[in-house]
Amino acid sequence: MNKMGMTSIRHFARLIAQRNGLCVRSWRCFSAMTISQVMQPSEFLHYIVLIMQLIFHPQQGTRDYNPKQMAIREKVFDTIIRCFKRHGAETIDTPVFELKETLTGKYGEDSKLIYDLKDQGGELLSLRYDLTVPFARYLAMNKITNIKRYHIAKVYRRDNPAMTRGRYREFYQCDFDIAGQYDPMIPDAECLKIVHEILRDLDLGDFRIKVNDRRILDGMFAVCGVPDDKFRTICSTVDKLDKVSWEDVKNEMVNEKGLAPEAADQIGEYVSMQGRKDLAEKLLLDPKLSQSKQACAGLADMKLLFNYLELFRVTDKVVFDLSLARGLDYYTGVIYEAVLTQAAPAPVSQLQNDNTGEEGVSVGSVAGGGRYDGLVGMFDPKGRKVPCVGVSIGIERVFSIMEQKAEAEKVRTTETQVLVASAQKDLLEERLKLTTELWDAGIKAEVMYKKNPKLLSQLQHCEETGIPLVAILGEQELKNGVVKLRTVASREEVDVSRAELVEEIKKRC
Amino acid sequence: MNKMGMTSIRHFARLIAQRNGLCVRSWRCFSAMTISQVMQPSEFLHYIVLIMQLIFHPQQGTRDYNPKQMAIREKVFDTIIRCFKRHGAETIDTPVFELKETLTGKYGEDSKLIYDLKDQGGELLSLRYDLTVPFARYLAMNKITNIKRYHIAKVYRRDNPAMTRGRYREFYQCDFDIAGQYDPMIPDAECLKIVHEILRDLDLGDFRIKVNDRRILDGMFAVCGVPDDKFRTICSTVDKLDKVSWEDVKNEMVNEKGLAPEAADQIGEYVSMQGRKDLAEKLLLDPKLSQSKQACAGLADMKLLFNYLELFRVTDKVVFDLSLARGLDYYTGVIYEAVLTQAAPAPVSQLQNDNTGEEGVSVGSVAGGGRYDGLVGMFDPKGRKVPCVGVSIGIERVFSIMEQKAEAEKVRTTETQVLVASAQKDLLEERLKLTTELWDAGIKAEVMYKKNPKLLSQLQHCEETGIPLVAILGEQELKNGVVKLRTVASREEVDVSRAELVEEIKKRC
Repeated sequence: MNKMGMTSIRHFARLIAQRNGLCVRSWRCFSAMTISQVMQPSEFLHYIVLIMQLIFHPQQGTRDYNPKQMAIREKVFDTIIRCFKRHGAETIDTPVFELKETLTGKYGEDSKLIYDLKDQGGELLSLRYDLTVPFARYLAMNKITNIKRYHIAKVYRRDNPAMTRGRYREFYQCDFDIAGQYDPMIPDAECLKIVHEILRDLDLGDFRIKVNDRRILDGMFAVCGVPDDKFRTICSTVDKLDKVSWEDVKNEMVNEKGLAPEAADQIGEYVSMQGRKDLAEKLLLDPKLSQSKQACAGLADMKLLFNYLELFRVTDKVVFDLSLARGLDYYTGVIYEAVLTQAAPAPVSQLQNDNTGEEGVSVGSVAGGGRYDGLVGMFDPKGRKVPCVGVSIGIERVFSIMEQKAEAEKVRTTETQVLVASAQKDLLEERLKLTTELWDAGIKAEVMYKKNPKLLSQLQHCEETGIPLVAILGEQELKNGVVKLRTVASREEVDVSRAELVEEIKKRC
Repeated sequence: MNKMGMTSIRHFARLIAQRNGLCVRSWRCFSAMTISQVMQPSEFLHYIVLIMQLIFHPQQGTRDYNPKQMAIREKVFDTIIRCFKRHGAETIDTPVFELKETLTGKYGEDSKLIYDLKDQGGELLSLRYDLTVPFARYLAMNKITNIKRYHIAKVYRRDNPAMTRGRYREFYQCDFDIAGQYDPMIPDAECLKIVHEILRDLDLGDFRIKVNDRRILDGMFAVCGVPDDKFRTICSTVDKLDKVSWEDVKNEMVNEKGLAPEAADQIGEYVSMQGRKDLAEKLLLDPKLSQSKQACAGLADMKLLFNYLELFRVTDKVVFDLSLARGLDYYTGVIYEAVLTQAAPAPVSQLQNDNTGEEGVSVGSVAGGGRYDGLVGMFDPKGRKVPCVGVSIGIERVFSIMEQKAEAEKVRTTETQVLVASAQKDLLEERLKLTTELWDAGIKAEVMYKKNPKLLSQLQHCEETGIPLVAILGEQELKNGVVKLRTVASREEVDVSRAELVEEIKKRC
């Protein structure tokens, strides 16, 4: 039995003990009792079955996708990829593992979550942690200086395997990035346009896209009197504002991170500001903030960004929000994050997994990204920089919303147009012949793998799997050179000549 | 520097030594020389660059897919998935890692090729080695007794990382399986129909599908006097017949595996036989073979299989070949393998990777599979069996053939229909506005991220990436409410009214 099986047994034994009025402290005493003293045989069997299921369960934190989940997943991917292609993106793929050292030093504290492969000889490898670092490595290695690419693939994080948390250790990321030296804010605006289009097309309810700029944040910290070496840690604290109150944030800044209370209060004033182009214009005239060159550069670009967003017709959803900070170190310019404002609550097991694929973010967050002009240079022997801006769609969050929506619905998991059936015995050969004709004409057709299936069970198969049409063969039909074409929903039946069957099916679905 | 970097440096140093007339034996003496004694500075620089590239290369045995390769890959997947869907298949996905013990004891000697994750706490995990074992685990765990599913995903094999071999350690498998208790040979025949359709649709040249049956092989071994405990090892030897001569095979049987020469000669007679239904009928009357119950069951099913294959219209490519053995232990009935008979030779680096996704097979092999009725039961606590038959498409082999074919061709890596361009300065805003109109109408459109790009560079971008149309804006066009629509290939230009532009673009591509 594997470790997990043992853990499960202990877990269940504890549960049983508690249910039987035994507290955990009396566990030693309890463990000396025989099973028959604490439960019925049928109960015991029940627990054994549960434990067996756990043993054969895929390791916690990963999941199988069943056909219904796959059908939903395919639909989501299709919507997103259609948008990426509409914007002229190419796609690449990279290996699931990278050299361990490629990932080293890129994720700060989170590096402990990287999955290493066992050293079985050969070089040391790790499973990819995100798609951004492999992308930067790919650009540097192939000396690519401009590309617009998307990449949808699984990444791996060795998270606390506590059973109750339900965070996935294998999950999809869905990234779109534009690399290249271009005029300011045009590709940045296109990334926001893409988020807007995808969230509109996925139909997840209303949403808001918050934007800010690392240079504005840094300038703000500078003019508020934050010491240079505290920028990043204060930035992390600000990043919590969408989850906790300003009081808690201020408390952390002052009491944990040693910031002067006046500095914190000044930050507090700025981070409560929200607006659009007008706010950028106002802040450019702000006597304090305008003293920071960095902030002014960021604010001027913010104005420009909103100009382009107006042309792209997406300003209805975009807000310039000074409290948006985002955790990752590598951002150098504009940053953004999309949140759903009226989504259905996610199940508890999903709450921990609401990340945009880059970092843990707030519950409603479904996309995030920004500009990172320095990362590619870290992989280039000469340190040549390739400016990049990109966005990551929080696709696991999208899956779980879509799965919840579809819970009550019937989702078709096949695309079969017609079932070839017979009402009488000994027509297997005729059924196979007709099915072949349909397949060879490009029709999606099924036939039951039985010599003499009952008509009822054939019709049931259609109803269960959503096949809309049945082509029924019988002696009479064969004699007349026709097929009885039945519409499952309406139960209507018409005779269609064999020669016209393909056209008739195409016409109907 | 990582291990690989060091290895590379030693490798290059040896190459240089050899080139300079120094044999490997004089390596010690050579290593004492200074670099300037053996090469020019420019040469030295060249090697340093090569070494740097290797260091930043993804670990050997895996590869990045660039946009051109991805475009080819997508086309191949699309063709194959269309076929699977035509046959009413669902799809599932499983995690990239399984519990180590799930994989243990399933692959015989090849178990040493399984990639284990490092024990960083939590349960012991391994990367999946194929898609069949996870499928069987999935069925048993979810108590699924019938399903028709496909699964396309990457699998991992820790192969000898010698640089010259070029075998991939990460590669795609593409599996289609039918699980369920059905009337004999109907799903088996459909698997062969699917192989036939896919190879036809992929247009890889002529092909042949060899079929045989484990029961016929075992019956043959029994009547030829092979001891029971030698069935599997003799079977492995027979499996080599597509690569080596009968003499070599006989030699291995007799001298290495201790089979009596007369037994080997009798096997030799059988395994030279090829035919179709007629051969199955002939062998059912064979005085020796007909004494084996097993063989008779296999031969009767082979007859039945050919009946169905005739109805499916695929007998032109299918051959009953008694020399087909296939390596895997878990097959229990029909087995098959498709080979290309006129494919272009693969590059040397590919030769080692010609496997159907299940095991190493002959160079021309592009698909393989068979019936495995016992595997699911290995994962069920009660050992309940679920009969399965399936096929694996050797998709990496298909990719490499397609890539070779496309080497000289230009393959489009985007689907962009139109580039929004301008001939004059200061029209960025107008370009963005028009692009937005097109995106919002579902047109795939690009715009260059420059304030004032030259018309020539805009046209060049279209020619390089294959964009067929350019929508050109100028002062005059804006005044007249039109757009100049240029066909890149013919250089024709027509004025199209702004209101009709979307329709016009849709009409043209």
